[in-house]
Amino acid sequence: MDFVTAVTTDGGADYVEPANRIAVFDNDGTLWSEQPMYVQLAFALDRVKTLAPDHPEWKETEPFKSVLAGDMKGVAAFGIKGLVEIVAATHSGMTSDEFTAIAKDWIASATHPTTGKPYTSMIYQPMRELIDYLKANDFRVFIVSGGGIEFMRPWTEVTYAIPPENVVGSSIKTKYEMHDGKPAVVRLPEIEFIDDGAGKPVGIQKFIGKRPIAAFGNSDGDFQMLEWTTGGEGRRFGLIVHHDDADRDVAYDRDSTFGKLDRGLDDGPRQGWTIVSMKNDWKQVFPE
Amino acid sequence: MDFVTAVTTDGGADYVEPANRIAVFDNDGTLWSEQPMYVQLAFALDRVKTLAPDHPEWKETEPFKSVLAGDMKGVAAFGIKGLVEIVAATHSGMTSDEFTAIAKDWIASATHPTTGKPYTSMIYQPMRELIDYLKANDFRVFIVSGGGIEFMRPWTEVTYAIPPENVVGSSIKTKYEMHDGKPAVVRLPEIEFIDDGAGKPVGIQKFIGKRPIAAFGNSDGDFQMLEWTTGGEGRRFGLIVHHDDADRDVAYDRDSTFGKLDRGLDDGPRQGWTIVSMKNDWKQVFPE
Repeated sequence: MDFVTAVTTDGGADYVEPANRIAVFDNDGTLWSEQPMYVQLAFALDRVKTLAPDHPEWKETEPFKSVLAGDMKGVAAFGIKGLVEIVAATHSGMTSDEFTAIAKDWIASATHPTTGKPYTSMIYQPMRELIDYLKANDFRVFIVSGGGIEFMRPWTEVTYAIPPENVVGSSIKTKYEMHDGKPAVVRLPEIEFIDDGAGKPVGIQKFIGKRPIAAFGNSDGDFQMLEWTTGGEGRRFGLIVHHDDADRDVAYDRDSTFGKLDRGLDDGPRQGWTIVSMKNDWKQVFPE
Repeated sequence: MDFVTAVTTDGGADYVEPANRIAVFDNDGTLWSEQPMYVQLAFALDRVKTLAPDHPEWKETEPFKSVLAGDMKGVAAFGIKGLVEIVAATHSGMTSDEFTAIAKDWIASATHPTTGKPYTSMIYQPMRELIDYLKANDFRVFIVSGGGIEFMRPWTEVTYAIPPENVVGSSIKTKYEMHDGKPAVVRLPEIEFIDDGAGKPVGIQKFIGKRPIAAFGNSDGDFQMLEWTTGGEGRRFGLIVHHDDADRDVAYDRDSTFGKLDRGLDDGPRQGWTIVSMKNDWKQVFPE
């Protein structure tokens, strides 16, 4: 609030004109839950099961075999390569409109394995309020996530009031084609861009074209985004949400598979970033 | 105006909620002049001359040799490959902030070879007014251009009231690095994406994430953008600016090197697109 007051006070030393009031938010672990796994990974695994009847060969082909057997350790053993194969099989081969419909339908019906709630209810209420507070102060708010840009866009407008054009994420290659005389943008089985870690400043420059003045994250995948944002001239703000609340959510940081926070805990304070303790600082975690 | 009235009339059959009122504009030849060549090509050629003292080898290396000799036919003979080499040499090797400063300085001082005016005065006044008209009706307006995204962003906010985040264009690869302890996004000599022709719907989906309902172009490089935009459900609008005014501007279409308009003249009307005759339809071409 001190930061927002400083940059919005006309005539103040730290005043920033509205055109330059840009805030970026990580999604997984910052705006919504990323435990027990990234929601998009749960989506991909569900898609493997849904598509399995069309792929009898998957019963004998890894990593699909492990996915269908519910063997997560087995899936993890195939590392990044296995993940890319799962993503390619579940996220490509259809048009952009078809994928949007698939993702939209899934998010409307899927439930969190621990709480039984819709994933769009597993959002962090204080961060949701922060988005509104920034917008009320003429900030433009963007999501900058390692998650799939087209996985997020079907629901981020309703859930966070962040429209598709303000979502920056990872992507696969696409191609424009005519299908039965109708134009279509088709999704190809080829990774185009990973918007994580050092990729986040690249994605920010490419999609937004201005350096943000405020950045919000929760893991080491957000380090460079915070470093890039707070490394600019003038008044800046960086914040890390530390998942230290085992009662109301899941407590995780340095040793987590998803959303590991290690360097950020050590270097963040040194950089002048605010480290939020969910346990001590948040009155409420999830929406009612 | 009929279109805008139809999509903004609450309760009307063609009503479109503000969130979906997205308009896309080509830049070269639609918003500003692209004759005698793309402005960005003039920029690249000027940069070759500016950088030449640091590159004595260019005196004997093509296509730089032809550029320095002012031999445009010679440059053209090297085709796309030559152009890519010129772009790589003049558009990479510096940080994003440095390139922004270079482009900004150049556009502030460079003048059109025929009129002697700044390039930012060679904009098409009716299109400039159209941007304001659409924004007054709650449209979000984007540029979708084959030109360099980072060449356009330094001046499109002042010239067209279109902020950097609303500019979609071609790009080279970039990388995040630390330079003397300061974070930088560095421009690499590798083409990343060409936002032209069939690339425009790809760029639109990637950067905007929603299909526009109105598209404005002037050449065959805009065909797929118009086709994609007007191919959607509901009330749509597509327009092609036909450069047929030899008195007040340059007349060109089917045979032009820059901004060739051939298929659009034949198929546009069939598609229901408005073909604007600059000669007959425009009271004024450039700003006073």
